[in-house]
Amino acid sequence: MTTENPQIGIAVVGAGYWGPNLVRNAQATPGLRLRYLCDIDEKRARTVLGEYSTVTTTPSLDEVLADPEVDAVAIATPAATHFAVATAALEAGKHVLVEKPLAPTFEEGKALVETADRHGRILMLDHTYCYTSPVGYIRDRLRSGELGDLQYLDSVRINLGLVQPDVDVLWDLAPHDLSIFDAILPDDLFPVAVSAHGSDPVGAGHACVAHLTIQLSNGALAHVHVNWLSPTKIRTMIVGGSNRMIVWDDLNPTQRLSVHDRGVDTSDPTTLGPDNRGRTIVSYRTGDTVAPALANTEALRSVMVEFRDSITENRAPFTDGRSGLRVLALLEAAATSLAKDGVYVPVPDIVRERTPRPIGGAPATTIDEARRGRGEVTV
Amino acid sequence: MTTENPQIGIAVVGAGYWGPNLVRNAQATPGLRLRYLCDIDEKRARTVLGEYSTVTTTPSLDEVLADPEVDAVAIATPAATHFAVATAALEAGKHVLVEKPLAPTFEEGKALVETADRHGRILMLDHTYCYTSPVGYIRDRLRSGELGDLQYLDSVRINLGLVQPDVDVLWDLAPHDLSIFDAILPDDLFPVAVSAHGSDPVGAGHACVAHLTIQLSNGALAHVHVNWLSPTKIRTMIVGGSNRMIVWDDLNPTQRLSVHDRGVDTSDPTTLGPDNRGRTIVSYRTGDTVAPALANTEALRSVMVEFRDSITENRAPFTDGRSGLRVLALLEAAATSLAKDGVYVPVPDIVRERTPRPIGGAPATTIDEARRGRGEVTV
Amino acid sequence: MTTENPQIGIAVVGAGYWGPNLVRNAQATPGLRLRYLCDIDEKRARTVLGEYSTVTTTPSLDEVLADPEVDAVAIATPAATHFAVATAALEAGKHVLVEKPLAPTFEEGKALVETADRHGRILMLDHTYCYTSPVGYIRDRLRSGELGDLQYLDSVRINLGLVQPDVDVLWDLAPHDLSIFDAILPDDLFPVAVSAHGSDPVGAGHACVAHLTIQLSNGALAHVHVNWLSPTKIRTMIVGGSNRMIVWDDLNPTQRLSVHDRGVDTSDPTTLGPDNRGRTIVSYRTGDTVAPALANTEALRSVMVEFRDSITENRAPFTDGRSGLRVLALLEAAATSLAKDGVYVPVPDIVRERTPRPIGGAPATTIDEARRGRGEVTV
Amino acid sequence: MTTENPQIGIAVVGAGYWGPNLVRNAQATPGLRLRYLCDIDEKRARTVLGEYSTVTTTPSLDEVLADPEVDAVAIATPAATHFAVATAALEAGKHVLVEKPLAPTFEEGKALVETADRHGRILMLDHTYCYTSPVGYIRDRLRSGELGDLQYLDSVRINLGLVQPDVDVLWDLAPHDLSIFDAILPDDLFPVAVSAHGSDPVGAGHACVAHLTIQLSNGALAHVHVNWLSPTKIRTMIVGGSNRMIVWDDLNPTQRLSVHDRGVDTSDPTTLGPDNRGRTIVSYRTGDTVAPALANTEALRSVMVEFRDSITENRAPFTDGRSGLRVLALLEAAATSLAKDGVYVPVPDIVRERTPRPIGGAPATTIDEARRGRGEVTV
Repeated sequence: MTTENPQIGIAVVGAGYWGPNLVRNAQATPGLRLRYLCDIDEKRARTVLGEYSTVTTTPSLDEVLADPEVDAVAIATPAATHFAVATAALEAGKHVLVEKPLAPTFEEGKALVETADRHGRILMLDHTYCYTSPVGYIRDRLRSGELGDLQYLDSVRINLGLVQPDVDVLWDLAPHDLSIFDAILPDDLFPVAVSAHGSDPVGAGHACVAHLTIQLSNGALAHVHVNWLSPTKIRTMIVGGSNRMIVWDDLNPTQRLSVHDRGVDTSDPTTLGPDNRGRTIVSYRTGDTVAPALANTEALRSVMVEFRDSITENRAPFTDGRSGLRVLALLEAAATSLAKDGVYVPVPDIVRERTPRPIGGAPATTIDEARRGRGEVTV
Repeated sequence: MTTENPQIGIAVVGAGYWGPNLVRNAQATPGLRLRYLCDIDEKRARTVLGEYSTVTTTPSLDEVLADPEVDAVAIATPAATHFAVATAALEAGKHVLVEKPLAPTFEEGKALVETADRHGRILMLDHTYCYTSPVGYIRDRLRSGELGDLQYLDSVRINLGLVQPDVDVLWDLAPHDLSIFDAILPDDLFPVAVSAHGSDPVGAGHACVAHLTIQLSNGALAHVHVNWLSPTKIRTMIVGGSNRMIVWDDLNPTQRLSVHDRGVDTSDPTTLGPDNRGRTIVSYRTGDTVAPALANTEALRSVMVEFRDSITENRAPFTDGRSGLRVLALLEAAATSLAKDGVYVPVPDIVRERTPRPIGGAPATTIDEARRGRGEVTV
Repeated sequence: MTTENPQIGIAVVGAGYWGPNLVRNAQATPGLRLRYLCDIDEKRARTVLGEYSTVTTTPSLDEVLADPEVDAVAIATPAATHFAVATAALEAGKHVLVEKPLAPTFEEGKALVETADRHGRILMLDHTYCYTSPVGYIRDRLRSGELGDLQYLDSVRINLGLVQPDVDVLWDLAPHDLSIFDAILPDDLFPVAVSAHGSDPVGAGHACVAHLTIQLSNGALAHVHVNWLSPTKIRTMIVGGSNRMIVWDDLNPTQRLSVHDRGVDTSDPTTLGPDNRGRTIVSYRTGDTVAPALANTEALRSVMVEFRDSITENRAPFTDGRSGLRVLALLEAAATSLAKDGVYVPVPDIVRERTPRPIGGAPATTIDEARRGRGEVTV
Repeated sequence: MTTENPQIGIAVVGAGYWGPNLVRNAQATPGLRLRYLCDIDEKRARTVLGEYSTVTTTPSLDEVLADPEVDAVAIATPAATHFAVATAALEAGKHVLVEKPLAPTFEEGKALVETADRHGRILMLDHTYCYTSPVGYIRDRLRSGELGDLQYLDSVRINLGLVQPDVDVLWDLAPHDLSIFDAILPDDLFPVAVSAHGSDPVGAGHACVAHLTIQLSNGALAHVHVNWLSPTKIRTMIVGGSNRMIVWDDLNPTQRLSVHDRGVDTSDPTTLGPDNRGRTIVSYRTGDTVAPALANTEALRSVMVEFRDSITENRAPFTDGRSGLRVLALLEAAATSLAKDGVYVPVPDIVRERTPRPIGGAPATTIDEARRGRGEVTV
């Protein structure tokens, strides 16, 4: 960043499925200046930009990295190339925003985090869901204790989706759920072991239907169902708390989030009178359901804002490299379990040792918060 | 049955949660004559019948079993008593309809089946869901091959339900799913191993949230999610077939079943030209969705009709004792897996050696079939 | 009622579509004693009761009315006979509960009300919807001012319903909506004129599709769409208030009522500064949506309880004869408008001169109220 | 169009609410070349284009119209200016695409149609809904007779929408419904009279809630409910046919259109035997419901394609000036009725004399049609 130009110069690398979204949002974010769209297939990059754009295209990553006007790089290339592209960018002194997953292996991911640390550059994961209003809302209520103790998490992410040639359905879809869990869980609650079952009924060469069961440190289970072969699209997450329960139905346009004052209470049997000795007394609570008025932000816009702000403020972003590393660790444990018929595989220490998150990065989640100016959101 | 009275005399034993439904349906089924409602708490039996009923109440099972006018007994007592009550009834020469599960253990269930065989009496399970239109419809299409190869089964049965004091959520709710799977699967397709995970976040003393993964003989997975702690009630089953997929949403009054002409096809890589050698070519199919017009039967009425007909025709009912035994075998395997952190537990031979089902017992499933007189249904 | 038997003896007249529901609920209501089911076709009455019932059947209304054990009569015969049957019952000194509509004409209805007054007997309308939790909830919030000023009412009641041979769709279905409006409107708000459009696209001889527009005394419109020819069943009512708006979707089992903190506010143009002079400034409010936990009562049970209580307490019931008369007056005005191409027809004075309603008759609407013992409800 | 550049030069006039959508789609349509975005507030035009665009902005309409590279103009200015802008453009020899409504009065609209005819230029309405898959599907089935006789149309378009300062809710929202009716009705079926009721509960100065009843030439009713004050957004249209009925729920992402094989049939009473003489025999049909797989097109893209093609092929577009005029005639009749308490107002001859529509303009509606290459659609 030169003093003459206070904008952060950015280049998008990769003009495939996700790249155009990065291009559009980079252009629309104040403080960012899109310099390049880089793709080996320069014609594709040109098509993405359209014939009316002044943005430069190039097939050469070297050209991008050599340009001092480029302060940051947003990477949307295939996962197999993340390590090489991101390493080159970091070593060239660029800040990096990388599409999930961080890298194809935990080892490569770890090397990336270290490279970023060594060069003092931002390494941020494009875990887009973490920047949606529902995740922000759930995170705030779960971490503040408003929901009570976490009883279970249940996520269903199924669709007639694209059967990927190079990764199975867990690696393709579960990063979304795992990064959401990572974002919403309180600091003292974390995964301890992972079990995965999967099947490949269409002969794709890897699992197309999978179930992930994660044991949390308080004994609760988090379950994820991912499926490329479902006739209907379902994206639902239930957060069961002892005080409140939240249902997030991401495809329900009129009521994405509903907070249920429902639950089950059990009495301590030792405090019961002689007649009930040894019995567990269960009572039920059925109160109102509230659908909060959520701010209507485009999550990827908030991603860009957070990338910009973490660069400007020289601080870790909300979804930093370590959060991407925790997701990778869980995916590798899941892959191990899948290969061993679903036995529980313990997760490595990095998943347990969560560094406190910068909460400045979370966007406003409700219309009220947005009005009070907590963040840049479109109401 | 005397010649003067061609009706089948029936007694209902148990006036608790389920008994009143049996009473109402027994009274409304032509050919059945309700003689007794028997409950240890005779006052409760009287309350169930109401003050306008001519039906006899009694606290004495012996009185019921001694009455030659009683040909059959429908048992709705707690599961722990099923073995004793059903054995006594069978040995007294009565036909028996018993609420699920058949018995608390596989061994007791097996003894019941043998007792029924020895005495030549009907032993039928009240697997009510098996007599619903959706199950009949799915069964017909899956067994006829119309859906193609089975790719997966996925069932979700969650609710803020009654936390049972004596059984966990698997034993309480999964019998529904397991009996449905048993009813719809073709004869050459069967469970081979079971994995179960569960948790008890409210301190009930046993699992309140559980996930069951069943490996089928063709490699496909059948998954069941049962949960007593969900704020919303969901009862959905997806049947993924290579030609068609069915979504059964039992709580959607306007569209309980939808048949999707959607799917994924993969080409045999060995037949591909040199350019695609070694690659799997995937193509997608997105056709119309059809919601068939289903007959609007009360399933328990069809249960009663099938009980009556199997007695009259002296044949195995659609949900005979052996089907109840197969469900018990799966439940016991699940319990073993649950205790062993979710490892796969193979299922006993009885689950694999399915005797062909009498198809006469299945009620009409669509309005058209009902009109063609295939069964006693209310359209 | 003799002192020996403190129960109110009741007879149900009419064993057709609605009679069985009256029979079932009369039997289940403490304090009522069902003496007769009376129908010209005594065999049908017998079938309704079933072969296990001790209740007397008779084809003779005279026999019923002559029996001093009969204190009250519930009439579920065709509308054309209501006047004759109810008059005979009232003149025999019986209290009367009559299915909607009160009578086929306003004149007959008026005569019935006068006959009841003359004989000092209860005349109650079976406006079942008025006893549901949603209507009670809306009534409480609208009359308390919680919703603000009423801006509009919009009711849709469409279905592939039974095309009636003797009445058009307005007379068949709109009584439900009109009686609900009558129940929920504050005392100082009432209909002043009615416009109706209809069509008969199947040649039934009268309207099968109709739209009713009712001008209220504050200028707001209440609109009713009734339709026998709709492929889907919709039963939705929107209550637009300046502070809150309520959507009642009677077929949504998980969320029958939702209360929206949404609306439009306009500023008084005279208070605006010079720049905005002459302009109307509009602002929007988008707050949370709340789905209250409603008591799960069977409305017809509450009807029976109110009938019993109004007899015991010798007071006007919640849906008394005058409320039935107001509905008849609106229906006749609608018929006049329908015949005159939809011109507004003013409503008679009786619709405007509403006597204050006994609020004791309203059942508990929320689970909380029910728990505080406001009424006999099943939670 | 010069021979060197076979593209059609286009300018968008108006950078307000709708203009950005025209800009985006004009840029993305092959064969169109966006030359200008023109707005009195040039800064706003620049903001809409963004800082990366090569498109020229100008505050001068004259400059745009003087440029020979501009062949066509797309107008998205306030309705009050449509007449002046479109007249100037047509007289400058430009083809014109104009946002609905064509003009604020029928007279002005008529003058525009005549001006376009005189200059031999295309005048096209941006009736976007007419280019959606659901409208195409309904149109095809209704005009082919597949749905049978039209029994009724019912459209609900309600929302907490923007209360417009200059037009009432009928002029704001009903053009959508009226243009859809115009597009789907067979040539021999047309509106004959219009009745409108409305109210202004927020003091906006004009109706914010309105009901429109349109009598069709076969006696059926078409009803439209438009409302700016509804807490929930509903956009549903029911097309009742004697053979099939279609429900279009535009906000249901998983099932926008459902075709119901349901209906009511009445027998000719003259053919009935003596017992049924004088009675109408009614029978019901309840068959399957089909949700067709619709092509997933962006309607505005199809609008642009049709504008381009009608220019290139020198033919009337699907939504030509006359279709806009028919909509204006209905709106004026509705306004007259609204002012006269809802009396039926006959529609002018132009509504009855429909010229056959060019069907080439309709986009493919189902995925199958799209695959067979009927139009430019994204599946």
